[in-house]
Amino acid sequence: MNMDHKGQHKNAEDRGGGTLYGLGIGPGDPELITLKALKIIQSVAVIAYPAPEKGDSLARSIAAAHFPGGQTEICIRTPMTPGNFPADDVYDRYATEISGHLTAGRDVAVLCEGDPFLYGSFMYIFARLSRDHPTKVVPGVSSLGACAAASGRPLVSRNQTLSILPAPMEEQELERRLLEADAAAIMKVGRHMAKVKRVLTKLGLDKDACYVERASMAEEKVCALQDMDEDAAPYFSMVLVRRDERPEP
Amino acid sequence: MNMDHKGQHKNAEDRGGGTLYGLGIGPGDPELITLKALKIIQSVAVIAYPAPEKGDSLARSIAAAHFPGGQTEICIRTPMTPGNFPADDVYDRYATEISGHLTAGRDVAVLCEGDPFLYGSFMYIFARLSRDHPTKVVPGVSSLGACAAASGRPLVSRNQTLSILPAPMEEQELERRLLEADAAAIMKVGRHMAKVKRVLTKLGLDKDACYVERASMAEEKVCALQDMDEDAAPYFSMVLVRRDERPEP
Repeated sequence: MNMDHKGQHKNAEDRGGGTLYGLGIGPGDPELITLKALKIIQSVAVIAYPAPEKGDSLARSIAAAHFPGGQTEICIRTPMTPGNFPADDVYDRYATEISGHLTAGRDVAVLCEGDPFLYGSFMYIFARLSRDHPTKVVPGVSSLGACAAASGRPLVSRNQTLSILPAPMEEQELERRLLEADAAAIMKVGRHMAKVKRVLTKLGLDKDACYVERASMAEEKVCALQDMDEDAAPYFSMVLVRRDERPEP
Repeated sequence: MNMDHKGQHKNAEDRGGGTLYGLGIGPGDPELITLKALKIIQSVAVIAYPAPEKGDSLARSIAAAHFPGGQTEICIRTPMTPGNFPADDVYDRYATEISGHLTAGRDVAVLCEGDPFLYGSFMYIFARLSRDHPTKVVPGVSSLGACAAASGRPLVSRNQTLSILPAPMEEQELERRLLEADAAAIMKVGRHMAKVKRVLTKLGLDKDACYVERASMAEEKVCALQDMDEDAAPYFSMVLVRRDERPEP
């Protein structure tokens, strides 16, 4: 591939046409949008955002108060595959639609909850379009920082390591990785709560673990992991784990 | 400790007095400040920020354009111990100064590069004051997201794990942790560059590794790790590692 380290073909900048923006819009609180993302939202002709197959787009709800009015909107509705990932052909279709706007000279902002390159859905559009169109990625406040802030406890300090572990992984792998971790953030807990509690209890890490859901949103919830039922966690939830009660910094 | 999960003694909110804000102000680009942090910067009576023993405060330079004028400023100058951590007694002294303002009813914002609870220096103030004063932590864009954006490559996707590894750790531990990682961000590379290159080369992870320094700042630099000299990395630098060239998402 003839990519430079900005992730673009070297001549994409020279081709003219609109710019594709991958915009991190933060974890949920509309005030956790950056000045940079705000400026881009208010200047582009086209705003795209992910949404479930049915129902409202969380990304749109975070940013909508800042929409300038008159922009074209593209709601990227993505049915999930059995593996719980979006279907490839759906992204192919939306990429073609977005590419049409870019080729016609219109800038397109794709909104992304949290940070675009930390488990962000923007990467599916990025993979399809960044070779042929000028592309800029604007980092956003991630759910990681928002959950740590909500928990009221520093996540990591000094020279500790931090392991970011998606909850859907296999139980044995989760156990093995937690055994090695100084501190860990277990993401996308949702229906994997029973497994997460089981592993943390086995390792003696459950007592100090903190559960956070919908960090920074109006419905934010923070509690000790031990106080959580096994079937009550939504997809946007995280468990923060520390190896032991550390000395105050 | 009688702490709730907001990290405060339960009665701190009821005591009156000013509020202590830990403000994430992002990785360096002044436009990567959030609307929330901006609003707080413009409303508080006292703004504090970390600085080296001599020289300018990076945090102040990121946010200064937004200072309302007339605020009291506290420059937290922290000489480093031989272990490269700030001296405890220095933080004790600044905490006492900040506590005086809070007790007198003045809100104090402590600026923090990146995110306050992800290796942020705010935690030293937090540990000393959050028990006795109402405290709010505002998450910010971390250098992690900013480096990934600068690199032009998604850091992690789907159910991959991400290991955040401070470069100062022992060489054997760094090797062991990289051996297990799907993807890794090696932080605070600075004078540890030779060690980082040696370990990554040994593991065959050097060819695809990306080096980023001062992400999002005017002096941002991005290059292949292989193109970096061993003695040229500043403290604010990161190496992003992926296990192998992954299929496009």
